[in-house]
Amino acid sequence: MPVYKAPVEDVMFLLNDVFPIERHNNLPGFADATPDVVEAILAEGAKLCEEVFTPLNLSGDQEGCTRNADGSVTTPKGFKDAYEAYASGGWMGLSVPEEFGGQGLPSVLNTIMQEFLSSSNLALAMYPGLTQGAIAALLVHGTEEQKRTYLPKMVEGAWTGTMNLTEPHCGTDLGLLKTKAVPNGDGSYAISGTKIFISAGEHDMAENIVHLVLARIEGAPQGTKGISLFVVPKFIVNDDGSLGDQNGVSCGSIEHKMGIHGNATCVMNYDGAKGWLVGQENRGLNAMFVMMNEARLAVGVQGLAQSEVAYQNAVAYAKDRLQGRSLTGPKFPDKVADPIIVHPDVRRTLLSIKSFNEAARALVVWTGLNSDIAHRSSDDAQRQTAEDYMGLMTPVVKGVLTDLGFDNAVKAQQMFGGHGYIEEWGMSQFVRDARIAMIYEGANGIQAMDLVGRKLGKDGGRAIMTFFNEVGAFCQENADDENLKGFVAPLQQGLGHLQQATMWFMQNAMAKPDNAGAGATDYMHLFGTVALGYMWAKIAKAAHAKKSQGNGVAEKMDAKLLTGRFFMERMMPETSVRLARISSGADVTMAMPMEAF
Amino acid sequence: MPVYKAPVEDVMFLLNDVFPIERHNNLPGFADATPDVVEAILAEGAKLCEEVFTPLNLSGDQEGCTRNADGSVTTPKGFKDAYEAYASGGWMGLSVPEEFGGQGLPSVLNTIMQEFLSSSNLALAMYPGLTQGAIAALLVHGTEEQKRTYLPKMVEGAWTGTMNLTEPHCGTDLGLLKTKAVPNGDGSYAISGTKIFISAGEHDMAENIVHLVLARIEGAPQGTKGISLFVVPKFIVNDDGSLGDQNGVSCGSIEHKMGIHGNATCVMNYDGAKGWLVGQENRGLNAMFVMMNEARLAVGVQGLAQSEVAYQNAVAYAKDRLQGRSLTGPKFPDKVADPIIVHPDVRRTLLSIKSFNEAARALVVWTGLNSDIAHRSSDDAQRQTAEDYMGLMTPVVKGVLTDLGFDNAVKAQQMFGGHGYIEEWGMSQFVRDARIAMIYEGANGIQAMDLVGRKLGKDGGRAIMTFFNEVGAFCQENADDENLKGFVAPLQQGLGHLQQATMWFMQNAMAKPDNAGAGATDYMHLFGTVALGYMWAKIAKAAHAKKSQGNGVAEKMDAKLLTGRFFMERMMPETSVRLARISSGADVTMAMPMEAF
Repeated sequence: MPVYKAPVEDVMFLLNDVFPIERHNNLPGFADATPDVVEAILAEGAKLCEEVFTPLNLSGDQEGCTRNADGSVTTPKGFKDAYEAYASGGWMGLSVPEEFGGQGLPSVLNTIMQEFLSSSNLALAMYPGLTQGAIAALLVHGTEEQKRTYLPKMVEGAWTGTMNLTEPHCGTDLGLLKTKAVPNGDGSYAISGTKIFISAGEHDMAENIVHLVLARIEGAPQGTKGISLFVVPKFIVNDDGSLGDQNGVSCGSIEHKMGIHGNATCVMNYDGAKGWLVGQENRGLNAMFVMMNEARLAVGVQGLAQSEVAYQNAVAYAKDRLQGRSLTGPKFPDKVADPIIVHPDVRRTLLSIKSFNEAARALVVWTGLNSDIAHRSSDDAQRQTAEDYMGLMTPVVKGVLTDLGFDNAVKAQQMFGGHGYIEEWGMSQFVRDARIAMIYEGANGIQAMDLVGRKLGKDGGRAIMTFFNEVGAFCQENADDENLKGFVAPLQQGLGHLQQATMWFMQNAMAKPDNAGAGATDYMHLFGTVALGYMWAKIAKAAHAKKSQGNGVAEKMDAKLLTGRFFMERMMPETSVRLARISSGADVTMAMPMEAF
Repeated sequence: MPVYKAPVEDVMFLLNDVFPIERHNNLPGFADATPDVVEAILAEGAKLCEEVFTPLNLSGDQEGCTRNADGSVTTPKGFKDAYEAYASGGWMGLSVPEEFGGQGLPSVLNTIMQEFLSSSNLALAMYPGLTQGAIAALLVHGTEEQKRTYLPKMVEGAWTGTMNLTEPHCGTDLGLLKTKAVPNGDGSYAISGTKIFISAGEHDMAENIVHLVLARIEGAPQGTKGISLFVVPKFIVNDDGSLGDQNGVSCGSIEHKMGIHGNATCVMNYDGAKGWLVGQENRGLNAMFVMMNEARLAVGVQGLAQSEVAYQNAVAYAKDRLQGRSLTGPKFPDKVADPIIVHPDVRRTLLSIKSFNEAARALVVWTGLNSDIAHRSSDDAQRQTAEDYMGLMTPVVKGVLTDLGFDNAVKAQQMFGGHGYIEEWGMSQFVRDARIAMIYEGANGIQAMDLVGRKLGKDGGRAIMTFFNEVGAFCQENADDENLKGFVAPLQQGLGHLQQATMWFMQNAMAKPDNAGAGATDYMHLFGTVALGYMWAKIAKAAHAKKSQGNGVAEKMDAKLLTGRFFMERMMPETSVRLARISSGADVTMAMPMEAF
């Protein structure tokens, strides 16, 4: 049975030493989040994940969800109880405003919890995860009545939420969607159509399910400018808050998927279901984007989460499995063979995962803090910078952390040899579960296009320039720091490649947008490598400072620094290849006749 | 339902134009293999794959194998009939000597058929694939009596074969194996022990199953020097060739795996089973290596095969799926949206797969021809060079083609968005099936160590020097060829990186073998990239020559050249990163204390 231990200590190092959370205690909710409180909360969350969620991961995968003849869906054994433990622990409302029953704490804490939850049981974690996305959308775009009607119940976990975008003929291109909304005359609409790939669309964990649904109001314009957002509860909510009639929405079938078997992925049929407009008419995509940006960050975290749990299991196996001898002579001569962790290629593989995990976690925390600043700061300039970073980093976190998270799950599986391919060892599940994160909430190619086509040029390139300046200034300030030798120079070189690639787009993609399209994925990864490298440089600086305080953490900080040096030596050099690919342009790619593929 | 069309035309281009098979018609069996005959054989093989094997691929995955209460195993519906079609078509013996019922044709044709078969149905293709490996081992190491007893039945497909190496506590490190062999006094041995991960260990397709089993004769030395190889039939063969008693070998259980569900992966229990020594006492690993080298080449082909079939389906989907508009304005204004193949990022993805497939196929054909020369040539020098190349290329073909084959299956799956994650579309199966090829027949880390630790230095580096000279000479001879602009220079640069990396090992890994271990995987991939680049340069030369003949193939050759240019622009630059990683050495990797992972 796979193991998992939530990386609380690593998170506390990030929140205390690398990005001191105390610096932000002027923000609403942060004053309560003292280091002691944060550590206590995360320790409690870790316990839930390790003791309740983890033991259900493999069994949930093997059992899967069942759609019953009446259209109801049964989740795997134990899921309902585990969800109730989550809900009763108050985790759903961790960072939701207190007026709706939440605790109003920094959202970065919720993001960190999403990592722990997704590592321990991704399929299960998705049920509350989608609910939190729906809460976020209603908080921003819902009417006061809608908020009063739905949010308290959702925050306490009694009701869950979903997002309904995709239809059989349209996923990425929502302008094609056909689900229609006809006014009932009483302020509500009759929603009809078919939605597919609806995660947590139907299940047995909650009294009600609050569907957020994109549909086209009768007579609205074609394309994306005619799409509106509706709230469509499974059971109509009476004026007194009690549940009334079952609404005209049902689960037509559930999909047989490669992974996340414990999450019900539903075909949802809307047959004149009663729905209420959320936000403005025909501005549904805008409203949905609030939910999607939260969701994209959360999905990026899922990539890290699978990488982390797969890594932990690979390390345990590599220390346990005896096979062959070290190239430099037996390390454990009393055993029949050495554990495979003595082999350089095994260590290289493990370090390539570890050096990603720790930097990715830093990037998530940094982005999460920026999200808090963007939502809570009263300082316009600070808020703007944070919003810029959020916009810039969202596709990078989603695209890069899920691509590499999957690759790392595969690498970790490889450490097990043949056993990695056998389902009962659990490594296959990490790979299969990690795979979805590259696809949903906008496939990673779409993230790359969002970054290159939308985020780079926004506001005259303000966000990317701010990033260049910040990283450039760090490199300049620390160029002569002996402690950061091996960190600053490779980072500076990677930054240079990123700047050259950006310049190349400016010069070559304005007139020929295909040049941007053909380089977008490589640019996203180039950006990701530089961002992760920057995280390592900041971690290294903090590690040296902590080490010099002599508080008995020298060995741990030395391990951090070795891991960071591995990243700088082995991962940073990739930036040159990314640049070469980008600047080779789109000519060959576009010249190929369609029939010659 | 996924589609598949065997790439017969591409193979014929390779055999007629790039590596003209007619040049070898002095070798035994080659005189019969005229281009017309070869094309007719491959067309017939393609038909079997497309019409019989392909339709059973998805259903075989979904149904899987069942172990019955009596220990027998039932394969998926249709598998038995399909196997019989394969056997009665004479495919098992395509390149087996005629005296044992084979057709004696070049083994490269069999290798090509392995690609077609593995693309169309990997799980099914493994049953005859393992039989061919067992045939190869018996041909080389079996006694005359053993050959007479087993080979004709195996060649006609009435009996199948297996290889039994792995035990629960030992896979890579066979020196630890415990299965024992006790002399019965009549020339036979009593074999006892447990073997795991035995592909095709038990099934319902054949009258008998011929197990080749590694075991330790009572009193033999510990470690790898005390291992012998035995032939252990499921049913004892009587002197007249009829089947006698059931032997003491049975299938204890079958594994639940990530993929290749249609192949029965068995735990095999040997309980005093009667076995006969194959080859010399205590030289079993040597004998098994014959089988393993054949098998490693075949597994590399499986990587290509999954990449090819996944690519074909991704292309079909990309031409069919309407979503969004081209960045340069609608290409199909009469449709609701453009097919996604208009998008540069989709084309980039498809071309990265295609440019691998065509070069990998060339590498397989080249290596397959070298295998034929090594086995059949009477020219000592020619045979030695071919043997050198076979030794050098086997780990590269196995490791690189399976790593990239898997990556490509993932990329192809990504083209489908959410549909790629749903099992009924079949893309998930290609990914799950491709995954095993990186693991079995020596996990790819082991292939890298074989290349760096064993093959590089063998005979004073003769093989690698021959390769350097051949590629270097090609670059020199074609440096001024305008047609090969864009091919020779990047190849030359990649070759330079490979030479520098080789030199770095010579200078740094003799005294410190960890430097070889920490760089082995990157070296294997560096080698692979250069080898594939060399294939592209040779293909480009042949394509230009063919085009200038003006025989109505200009468009096809132009597509080849574009695909090759894509490889040169986008894939070859990777060699610089590989070199940077290798030459960063093992210091950081080995400095990490075991408990700090």
